[in-house]
Parts: sequence; C-alpha cells; structure tokens
Amino acid sequence: MAETTIRDRSIHRKAVRDYHWEGVDCVPYKDDGRALFKTVTRQVLFSDPELSGELRHFEVAPGGFSTLERHEHMHAVLILRGRGHCLVGSEVRRVELHDLVTVPPRTWHQFRATLDEPLGFLCMVNAGRDKPQLPTIEDVAALETDPEIAKFLDNCVAAS
Amino acid sequence: MAETTIRDRSIHRKAVRDYHWEGVDCVPYKDDGRALFKTVTRQVLFSDPELSGELRHFEVAPGGFSTLERHEHMHAVLILRGRGHCLVGSEVRRVELHDLVTVPPRTWHQFRATLDEPLGFLCMVNAGRDKPQLPTIEDVAALETDPEIAKFLDNCVAAS
Repeated sequence: MAETTIRDRSIHRKAVRDYHWEGVDCVPYKDDGRALFKTVTRQVLFSDPELSGELRHFEVAPGGFSTLERHEHMHAVLILRGRGHCLVGSEVRRVELHDLVTVPPRTWHQFRATLDEPLGFLCMVNAGRDKPQLPTIEDVAALETDPEIAKFLDNCVAAS
Repeated sequence: MAETTIRDRSIHRKAVRDYHWEGVDCVPYKDDGRALFKTVTRQVLFSDPELSGELRHFEVAPGGFSTLERHEHMHAVLILRGRGHCLVGSEVRRVELHDLVTVPPRTWHQFRATLDEPLGFLCMVNAGRDKPQLPTIEDVAALETDPEIAKFLDNCVAAS
C-alpha cells in the first residue's frame, strides 16, 4: 500500500520515548487538504504482504480531533494512551485507557482528545480498503439533530 | 472462526480491571493437550466477518510461557503489559511495554514472562490461517545448538 511507512522489518522494534517506535516513521495523519482534523499523527506499526490486516497508531494532541468520515471498511480500535471521546454512528462515548471501539462499515466516526492530554489509539484495518468519504453539509446537519452529537461536533469545531 | 469468543459486538467495550474487557471471554490459551505451555489465557478482542484480521490479547502468568510452535501465518505482536523474553527464529530478545515483535511465516517462536509479573501482549493475525506445528525432538535439538536458545528453552522447562 502507498501509505506503508515501515522502514524496519526486523523481528523486534523497541518502543521508545513518548509512544514512538524504532524503525517506524511518524507522519502527519493525512495529506488530504479537504479533511477537517487537528494535530493528529500516524504510525504504521505492522503492514506486511503476508498480513491481511494492518495495525496503526494514531495520536491526537490535546484538544485535537480526527476527521469526521465514513467508509466501507471497519475500524477496530484500542485506546493506548489518554482519554477522550468518540462519535460512532449515533453514539458519543467517553473512552479511556485500553477501551475497545468498533467502527462498523458505513458509519460516521470521529475521535477527540481531552484538552489536557494526548489521545493515542491502535487501529486495526483490512490491508485492502476503500477511501474515506467526508460528510456533506447536509450530512452534518442530519447528525446535529441529536443534541449530544451537536455538542460533540461543536467542541471539535471550537477547538480548531 | 470456531475460536471466536466475542459475546458483545457493541461499539464500545470498556477495559475493566486487570486487563480484561467487557463482553470478551477470557479462556484458556489452547485446548490442545499436546501443546507445552504454562498459565496462559486468551481473549479475542476483535473478530468480525468484515475484518480480515483478528486482534487477540494473551496473558502469560509470571514464570509462564506460550507454546513453542511455527506456522505459515504471521504474528504481529505488541507488548501491552509487563516484561519477558521471546524466541523468534534464531533470536532471543528481551521485550517490554509497547515493544513490537514480528513473527514471520514458518518461524519457531515462544513468549516467556519474567518470574515477577505477567506478560500481556496483543497479537494480530489473519482471520484465515493454518494450524500451528509443534517441534519434534530433532527440531528442539537443532534449536538448542545455539547456547542462548538452549538457555531460553531450559528456563521454560525449568519453570514448568
């Protein structure tokens, strides 16, 4: 895959300071200028022709948030650092260390860090997957008919 | 897959005490009576028809060890708790929190906890995969021609 950034395929890659790993590039979350997100980095921990899944680590800085998006493929998320909130479909949940989040296919989702610490999470995906779809103004308006979702999304906008 | 033990497919499953998760069964590592291992549990965190990979959490009790085995499929491991050692092919490595371990196809491997704390690790695998192969006496003898591997394997036997 074009996004693979593993430089080191050795059997043992040590965790180094502050949630980084030997031989793993830490890159900006996305190159897509359309995507609304704030202060997110991405590290691909495992990606290999022999593996049908990939494991990535995303880190959202305090007050930051990932893109609101949906796609055909699923996300399987484990919180590795900090606390925050996520929107998955019609649910806003507070998430904390080691919590599991399942993002089903075709489901709007976004992750948001608290203001005081980074939110880091592992995300397992299929190696072969579709590109994310961004919401239209109408999609956002539909989501915001739920007051809790409106508050979640407003907080993201307010923090940007 | 027959081994899938997720009872709860909700979008948010909270981490509870001592590395357990809501809606996830904690089961013995293996049912195979032939396999030499000690005090290991298994929790399947993510397994879904829409995902081509699975994410499991294994915990090896202090002094315990996983089965020495090999197979066609790969393991992608992230240490989530404690410290220990692993054998991968001809390498014995000390592993600790958040280290990454890649087990290539057809490669003998085993994980061992230290005596003072559990070793917990995430393991990503392909959902479709072959069964492990156990070593013959000749395989073990060949591995033990390396003094470091011999010491690693002897420690496992001594702890059993």
